[in-house]
Amino acid sequence: MVVGIDPDPARLWPAAAGRAPQARARLVQALAAADEAAHGLAGTGAAPPSAGSARFEAAAAILAHSLALIDAAAPACVAAKPQLAFFEQLGAPGWLALECVCTRARAAGLLVLADAKRGDVPSTAEAYARALAGPAPGLGADAFTANPLLGRDALAPLVDGARAAHGGVFVLVRTSNPGAADVLDLPLATGEPLWERLAAIVDELGAGGAGGGLADVGAVAGATVPEHLARMRDLMPRAPFLLPGIGAQGGAVEALAPAFAPGRAAGLVTASRSIANAHEQHGGDPAAAARREAERLRAAAWALA
Amino acid sequence: MVVGIDPDPARLWPAAAGRAPQARARLVQALAAADEAAHGLAGTGAAPPSAGSARFEAAAAILAHSLALIDAAAPACVAAKPQLAFFEQLGAPGWLALECVCTRARAAGLLVLADAKRGDVPSTAEAYARALAGPAPGLGADAFTANPLLGRDALAPLVDGARAAHGGVFVLVRTSNPGAADVLDLPLATGEPLWERLAAIVDELGAGGAGGGLADVGAVAGATVPEHLARMRDLMPRAPFLLPGIGAQGGAVEALAPAFAPGRAAGLVTASRSIANAHEQHGGDPAAAARREAERLRAAAWALA
Repeated sequence: MVVGIDPDPARLWPAAAGRAPQARARLVQALAAADEAAHGLAGTGAAPPSAGSARFEAAAAILAHSLALIDAAAPACVAAKPQLAFFEQLGAPGWLALECVCTRARAAGLLVLADAKRGDVPSTAEAYARALAGPAPGLGADAFTANPLLGRDALAPLVDGARAAHGGVFVLVRTSNPGAADVLDLPLATGEPLWERLAAIVDELGAGGAGGGLADVGAVAGATVPEHLARMRDLMPRAPFLLPGIGAQGGAVEALAPAFAPGRAAGLVTASRSIANAHEQHGGDPAAAARREAERLRAAAWALA
Repeated sequence: MVVGIDPDPARLWPAAAGRAPQARARLVQALAAADEAAHGLAGTGAAPPSAGSARFEAAAAILAHSLALIDAAAPACVAAKPQLAFFEQLGAPGWLALECVCTRARAAGLLVLADAKRGDVPSTAEAYARALAGPAPGLGADAFTANPLLGRDALAPLVDGARAAHGGVFVLVRTSNPGAADVLDLPLATGEPLWERLAAIVDELGAGGAGGGLADVGAVAGATVPEHLARMRDLMPRAPFLLPGIGAQGGAVEALAPAFAPGRAAGLVTASRSIANAHEQHGGDPAAAARREAERLRAAAWALA
C-alpha cells in the first residue's frame, strides 16, 4: 500500500492544524525572512502585499497535516507518494514542506515515491533526476514517476539517475483518467495501442538494471482500466506496477490481480483522498480512519497475491 | 527572441558571482534558518550535514547569475524562459530563486514563460496551473509548457488556469531531441504520425480562447525538425510556436520561416546555452556577448517574418 500525500490547503485535518504552534510560528517567520532576503538580492522589492504571510502559514499547515497523515498511515504502508503539484502550488515554502515530508516518511520507515511525472530533453532530464533522486539538495526519493512522451533519450537520464541512487522510476503507460483514451489508447499503424509501445520501452529500459527479481523501471497502470492489466503483465513481466485510481477515481482493488502475478511486491496500490478523507465517509478521528482505510486496502491487495 | 534561463551551478558567469556579497550572505543565512525551522517542525532534525550551507550558497549563486543574464538579454528579448529543472535541483532555495527570477524578468519588461512540461490527471493538473500561472504563491507566469500525453481532460485545467490568468500554454507537439522519434513520430493506424494528432488537439483547445489573432494555446515545435513546420502551420494556423533547439542542439533560425507565416509574433525562437555561453565561443564579457548573440538571433528570426 502506498499513501498519496496530496495536501489540499482547504481540506486539512483540524487536529493537525493545532499542533506545535510555536514551531509553526518560527517557521512562518523564517520563511518570511528568507523571502525578503531573496527579493532584496534580486532588487525586486518584497513579495506582493496580496501574498502577505498567508502563503507561509499555508505551507506550515500542509506540512503539519502531511506529517500527521504519514504517522497515521505508515504502519499499513510501504511507501509515501507526495504529489509535487500540491507542494509547488505554495511556492518555495511548499517545496521546503515537501523536503520535510520526504525526510519524515523515511524516518517512519517508508520508501519515498515522488509523483512528479517529469519528462524533458536529455540535459534537462539530468537536472530533474538530480532534483528527485539525488542527495540533498535533491529530494533523495527512492523512486519517481516519469512521462515517456519525449522518447528513449529523454527517459535514459531519469533511469540512470534513479539507478545511481539505487532507486527506480515508474513510467506512465496507461493513466487512470478518462482522457487517457485520447492519446495513450490511439491505435498505431502496427495494430497495437500506443500504451503497448510504451510498455515495450519500459520492459527494455528495465532490462538494463541489476538482474533477478523485479526490474528498477516500473509502470504507472491505472486501476480504472483493470481490463488491460493482464496484457500489461505479459509485456512487462518484471516491472513493478504503480496502481493509482482506487477510490475517488472509481477503481477497485479486487480487479487488480494480474498486477500481482509475480508476487506481492509487484503491485503498488496507491490511494490519496480515500485515505486522507476516510473520516468524512466513515466518521471518527481522521488519523484513525486513515489508518483503518489503509489497512483495509492493504488487506484487499494482499488477498490477491 | 526568448532567453532560456537554465542556470548550471558549474557554469555561472564569474562577474555575477562577485556581486552583492552582503545581500547574498543575508540570503544564505535566512535560507539556513528557514530550513532549520522546517525540520524543527517536522521533528526530523537538521538537514543532513553533507548538505552544509553549500546548497544555500548555490541557490544564491544561480540567482545572481540569472539576474545578470536577464538584464543582459532583456533588450533583445520578448520573454524569459526559466527551465524549472535547473531550479528544482537546488530544492526549496532553488524554487525561491526561481520566484525572484520571474519577478525580475517582469520588472525588465519581459513575459515569463515557465518551462515546466507538466501533465497530470485533472485534479493534479489544477494544482500545477495554480503553481505556474496563479498569483503568488504561484509563479504568475504568462505562459508555461505542458505535456499532452494524458489527453484532453488533463490538458483542460492547464489551459483553463492559464486563460484565467490571461496567459497561455505551449503544448509539446514535436520536441527537439532525437528520441522524440521513438514516440511522437510513431505512425497511427489512421496514417499520420502521433504529433499530427497532438497538433489537432492544440488547434481544438486554442479555439476555446478569445477570438481573433493568435490562439492562447501554442505548440512546442523543435527547431531541429524544420521539415515539419509547414505541416504544423497547416494544422495549427493560429497557434504561436515555441521553437527550441537552436544552437547547442543543432537547429538554425534560417530554417524556421513557416513558423512565422501568420506574423512575427507567431514564432518564438528560444535559446539558452548559446546565449548564456556566447562568451566562450566569441570571447569578451559574458553579458555583452550574451546580448550580442540574442540580438543576432532576433535579427535572423525577424528577417524571416
